[in-house]
Amino acid sequence: MSLTVQKFGGTSVADADRIKEVADHIARSSQKEQVVAVVSAMGKTTDNLIRLAQDVSGIHPGRELDMLLTAGERISMALLCMALADLGIKSASFTGSQAGIITDTTHTKAKILEIKPDRLKAALKEGIIPVVAGFQGVSTGNDVTTLGRGGSDTTAVALAAALNADRCEIYTDVPGVFSADPRVVPEAKKLKHVSFEEMLEIAATGGKVLALRSVEFARNHNVVLEVRSSFTWEPGTLVNEENDNMEQPIVSAVTSDVSSAKLTITGVPDQPGIAASLFRGLADRAINVDMIVQNTSQDGTTDISFTVPKTDVGMAVEIAGQIAPMIGAENVSIDENVAQVSLIGAGMKTNPGVTATMFEELAKLGVNIEMISTSPIRISCMIRKDNTEMAVKALHQAFSLEQ
Amino acid sequence: MSLTVQKFGGTSVADADRIKEVADHIARSSQKEQVVAVVSAMGKTTDNLIRLAQDVSGIHPGRELDMLLTAGERISMALLCMALADLGIKSASFTGSQAGIITDTTHTKAKILEIKPDRLKAALKEGIIPVVAGFQGVSTGNDVTTLGRGGSDTTAVALAAALNADRCEIYTDVPGVFSADPRVVPEAKKLKHVSFEEMLEIAATGGKVLALRSVEFARNHNVVLEVRSSFTWEPGTLVNEENDNMEQPIVSAVTSDVSSAKLTITGVPDQPGIAASLFRGLADRAINVDMIVQNTSQDGTTDISFTVPKTDVGMAVEIAGQIAPMIGAENVSIDENVAQVSLIGAGMKTNPGVTATMFEELAKLGVNIEMISTSPIRISCMIRKDNTEMAVKALHQAFSLEQ
Repeated sequence: MSLTVQKFGGTSVADADRIKEVADHIARSSQKEQVVAVVSAMGKTTDNLIRLAQDVSGIHPGRELDMLLTAGERISMALLCMALADLGIKSASFTGSQAGIITDTTHTKAKILEIKPDRLKAALKEGIIPVVAGFQGVSTGNDVTTLGRGGSDTTAVALAAALNADRCEIYTDVPGVFSADPRVVPEAKKLKHVSFEEMLEIAATGGKVLALRSVEFARNHNVVLEVRSSFTWEPGTLVNEENDNMEQPIVSAVTSDVSSAKLTITGVPDQPGIAASLFRGLADRAINVDMIVQNTSQDGTTDISFTVPKTDVGMAVEIAGQIAPMIGAENVSIDENVAQVSLIGAGMKTNPGVTATMFEELAKLGVNIEMISTSPIRISCMIRKDNTEMAVKALHQAFSLEQ
Repeated sequence: MSLTVQKFGGTSVADADRIKEVADHIARSSQKEQVVAVVSAMGKTTDNLIRLAQDVSGIHPGRELDMLLTAGERISMALLCMALADLGIKSASFTGSQAGIITDTTHTKAKILEIKPDRLKAALKEGIIPVVAGFQGVSTGNDVTTLGRGGSDTTAVALAAALNADRCEIYTDVPGVFSADPRVVPEAKKLKHVSFEEMLEIAATGGKVLALRSVEFARNHNVVLEVRSSFTWEPGTLVNEENDNMEQPIVSAVTSDVSSAKLTITGVPDQPGIAASLFRGLADRAINVDMIVQNTSQDGTTDISFTVPKTDVGMAVEIAGQIAPMIGAENVSIDENVAQVSLIGAGMKTNPGVTATMFEELAKLGVNIEMISTSPIRISCMIRKDNTEMAVKALHQAFSLEQ
């Protein structure tokens, strides 16, 4: 009998009716395969708990924030087990700790170190469906930890790897991975299949369906993923290893991301080692720099622009402001009205014309390209934020992604 | 430095403001003594979780109910630690499991088997205030358990015993233990001191301030209790060992209880062993029988009446109905319109006149006494439910308890 890990996100277990629907689905699945369920907190639970924390205090120690937020999955998983009991299905809920999800001690964004799924295996052997709390683990110091953004997906993928499951189904409120955000491009097409590499690029450039980290984990452990809807239950998007026998689409998807800001340092002496000292400073504070552009040198000085997540802007400006005078630079400026538009497709590797077409399309729209970054299967352009929707629509059409 | 366990009930941590007040109090206390805090779930949390469970399913396996309800204290204790952090006080929350509260495997009403407070001791040593989840533990089978009604009080008392604390303060929404329920008798007086024995009788006969079980635990381990208000923070009622040097009040309190029903089995053959088989049957199903009355035999048959908690009436009737034909009894009837009114006082031991005064007072009111039960420091009468308030008021006045 095959084994599937089914992960249900917050919208999939948002209220009593949705939990009952999920129980129905698990009950049906369990007739033809072994199932391990992983659940997030119900809909708005996490937001409500965070609001309570803000009402109570301006200081939220990571250990206590983790203790607080992990209450959410306890509630949803216990309720799901009750709904399964109502259908005559034997199940048992397991906290991260009970499921053997051992993490490091970094509260609010712990990394999984090891999984010891003995209790889950024992339950499966007895015909009991394990319902596991996503997002949480227990640290090597025996404290409750959470895995940070996308943590429940990571829990599901990591459990699928540890249990040697045949696949990991990620149930959410959309039917799969699309060629573009359907809210922006109504004719966007659901992709039947994307490779891990494509999915990584999609997740990294603004695709919200799967968190980057869970895709990385799935690729590293070769866990076949399927993204599906818990509202329609229709077949979704399969994410697995690239298959050389399949014809690769040149472009699979267009994504956009407005979560970064552009920092520019002007009047930087154009000497070796100057840029290194800046980016070392940022790296030391764990700030993720994405695109970098350095202007042509004029009068022995140059301008350096780079993007950082908006959430890190404050810290990045502080660091850049400290380093600028040390390296003799003039000024640090921030620009938050930027967006990144990306094309992703495994077929790009063998089709060099994509970049040219992309640039031509943006030029036709009168959209200026401020920065560029590429990977073997992705091209990203930084443009003005106001142009994002227009650019995404035009590129989707130019590459006929609706077909 | 002395060590105090401070327990805060649901109303004491009902919202953000109340949690901040509790943090303030702990901060002040911690300047003069070591403090371990024990918290219940916030106000209505438990009720809301139970409602969710009812929405989701008609079946609530104990293991899952415990998993669900223990989310409540996680929330309140994490929030309290955040509020303490805001005041610059170092604290850390501990689940039942982390606090070393080991229970048996009886879900929803587990018994504490052992306490291993190593982590709490380590925290205290480091100057960190432990904030412990009340009501919950971990079973010998490594599952999450709850301690049932009054569980948080039991947690606090058990921790006070295990940590050899100097006292255990129970903070609630009333200023202490009163000579009667102040909602019924406005002139009721707050008692400065009651003995464990009196407190046990008060708790057993309808006094809601402390759960019977936690008082038993306190007596057995000689943990000095103080019941106090988290709204006024004024000195409350001290509960400890009887002190022979103190003058014992003849009557300390009047209590009433409408939570029992009266079952009557008529036409029972008046032979040895008949009553035993009935009460053995009830005991086997863990039904707590309180008062028992057997009428004078007529024609070789008798009527047996006894009280059981209203929550167990269904099961008690079922058992009585099964046993009645086996013992040749005629009929089983239920009467839910009954109430028990009790007088409690350590001085009763040496003052035999109390019973007479009580009966006279009830007679003056025209209140019929249907059943009687006594202990060395208590007299309880079963009367019609409608007469409860009138009887409590008259008895309170007759014994001058307002003075």
